[in-house]
Amino acid sequence: MDFVLQKTDASSSARVGLITTDHGQIETPIFMPVGTVGSVKGIHVRDLKDEVKAQIILGNTYHLYLRPGLDVLKAAGGLHRFNAWDRPILTDSGGFQVFSLSHRRKLREEGAEFQSHIDGSRHFFSPEGVMDIERVIGADIMMAFDECPPGDSDNKYAKTSMELTHRWLKRCVDRFDSTEPLYGYSQTLFPIVQGSGYRDLRTQSAEYIASFEREGNAIGGLAVGEPEDVMYEMIELVNNILPKDKPRYLMGVGTPINILEAIALGVDMFDCVMPTRNGRNGMLFTSQGIINIKNEKWKKDFSPIDAEGHSAYDLMYSKAYLRHLFVAGEMLGPQIASQHNLAFYLWLVGEARQQILAGTFVEWKDKIIKQLGQRL
Amino acid sequence: MDFVLQKTDASSSARVGLITTDHGQIETPIFMPVGTVGSVKGIHVRDLKDEVKAQIILGNTYHLYLRPGLDVLKAAGGLHRFNAWDRPILTDSGGFQVFSLSHRRKLREEGAEFQSHIDGSRHFFSPEGVMDIERVIGADIMMAFDECPPGDSDNKYAKTSMELTHRWLKRCVDRFDSTEPLYGYSQTLFPIVQGSGYRDLRTQSAEYIASFEREGNAIGGLAVGEPEDVMYEMIELVNNILPKDKPRYLMGVGTPINILEAIALGVDMFDCVMPTRNGRNGMLFTSQGIINIKNEKWKKDFSPIDAEGHSAYDLMYSKAYLRHLFVAGEMLGPQIASQHNLAFYLWLVGEARQQILAGTFVEWKDKIIKQLGQRL
Repeated sequence: MDFVLQKTDASSSARVGLITTDHGQIETPIFMPVGTVGSVKGIHVRDLKDEVKAQIILGNTYHLYLRPGLDVLKAAGGLHRFNAWDRPILTDSGGFQVFSLSHRRKLREEGAEFQSHIDGSRHFFSPEGVMDIERVIGADIMMAFDECPPGDSDNKYAKTSMELTHRWLKRCVDRFDSTEPLYGYSQTLFPIVQGSGYRDLRTQSAEYIASFEREGNAIGGLAVGEPEDVMYEMIELVNNILPKDKPRYLMGVGTPINILEAIALGVDMFDCVMPTRNGRNGMLFTSQGIINIKNEKWKKDFSPIDAEGHSAYDLMYSKAYLRHLFVAGEMLGPQIASQHNLAFYLWLVGEARQQILAGTFVEWKDKIIKQLGQRL
Repeated sequence: MDFVLQKTDASSSARVGLITTDHGQIETPIFMPVGTVGSVKGIHVRDLKDEVKAQIILGNTYHLYLRPGLDVLKAAGGLHRFNAWDRPILTDSGGFQVFSLSHRRKLREEGAEFQSHIDGSRHFFSPEGVMDIERVIGADIMMAFDECPPGDSDNKYAKTSMELTHRWLKRCVDRFDSTEPLYGYSQTLFPIVQGSGYRDLRTQSAEYIASFEREGNAIGGLAVGEPEDVMYEMIELVNNILPKDKPRYLMGVGTPINILEAIALGVDMFDCVMPTRNGRNGMLFTSQGIINIKNEKWKKDFSPIDAEGHSAYDLMYSKAYLRHLFVAGEMLGPQIASQHNLAFYLWLVGEARQQILAGTFVEWKDKIIKQLGQRL
């Protein structure tokens, strides 16, 4: 993997860059749609490319390990071959899901024991094991195995957890560096800064993570219940420590406003289930504000879903029709809304990129943020 | 509406024709995807055109009347404007749903009283009322309001029901002929032959229906539980009576084999929920046979969904991936399978058309039917 920092904004820490992987290039700042179990829910691969204009998608190691399982993924020749997505893929490490989704997890130095949320079967994830799994999945960017503590953890718990994550990181790196990719293209490993909402821990973690000098770095453990200003404070703190010449990935964040603020603080990469999950529930993000499409007020509004929108469906279908699909429980409703939201997120980061290049980012951001939060 | 009979097969009653409506042309024989509540479940309008190659779709009067309701449809300027489908639409009359889906229906000479299956609200459908509703929906082809008796009805019930349907037809025609379309394009009304599996009743009904000399005629009340040979016998009988220079529409039928046999008996138009409903359950129709994609045997079969298939997705995704989507409950699975099945149905009738034109239809039909029923 290669990263070129193309420009840094004069009025903020926002940056424009270009990541090159064996599956193609990624223009940053970028949003990565989440393809949990190997599909971005409700979106055809072709639409993901042509309409959403996604450059990289995510796969969840925990989910893919359980279904379809490593035997299938290995036989397929990796996730790219399996799900027909031939552009870059990033996999998380499963840490977040083990701690949030699985049953009866037991944490120990060696790793995490857990029961599948699907059938209760017992499994064990260790740093080394997760590296091996991510090799089999074959993502271009692999994430280190970490513990993600709750947003309200006290300093002591957060410190203990962070130190475990650090020890696990060393083991991840050792395993990663002593193994080879399986499918003939290269993979890279991103370590993850933890430390909850504590400045001392975040500082310590960012310094430790930076010391590995990997090709990119991630910030984890945010947007897990802490106040937003704490999140922004931690991002700023960490980004002042992480190397400037490497991409920075803020995991699992967030709303369109969160993303713009984090871009201003120097974040380059984002992922979040919000555009698809909220889309499936009828919430649309637009440049003018937020639409709850199930609302009675759209019943006879035959204007396009989003006249300023960037997916072909935005102009093709009306608000009244999309509302009807949701009210009638037609699956086309969630499909359209998910695709709209993803196309909007990709437009948003692409536009941020253009504004940074033009030197107008902060002005643009401050103006559009006022609109983004409005309820239409 | 205009119909040109372009060719009749020398070795069967199969026909090739061209229907012209104000929303475009329809090459027959044709299959019409069912867009129950105004959307063909899981299929974007663009894919319905470009991938499925649908020329006309169905809307269900009963469902559209309940949701979104006539006020919305009228305000939208009709269903075409509402659901963004600008090619021809056919609406059934709601008769079938009133008798199969609604609660506490009461049948009387005037019409049918029923309670909505959604909220129990009370409604009344009369022949005149249904004509008015179908005017508001604005389909290019409207169906007459009929009673559809169960497949095992005795001759007496079937006769009484048929006679009611005939009296209702007269009222439908009177109302239709004394009203105008609402949106500036023309609509036409198809009457429906009933009579269950009884030769005497089917003969009587076909003669009565033919006497109206409408622009097209339909055969209803088949594929409702009667043996297949009875269905074919009734189709043959009725088609010998219905005028040859008008399109014949066999309502709600059926499997790929049913469709080819009915084409051989002189049917021009078909609709059925089978490709979408069975697709949502993981059953794929292909030219080689039927696939239950959830089957363990496809777990590591990375060959295309249908190497001979006619939707872009058939070659893009593998059987193993599609199976995985179904096993993991990902909505993309039903989307892909539905689209595959619809594209296959449209290919099947299009290929039948080509074979009729080439004079090779019966030979081709007899050969492909052996494959179509196989379980792969």
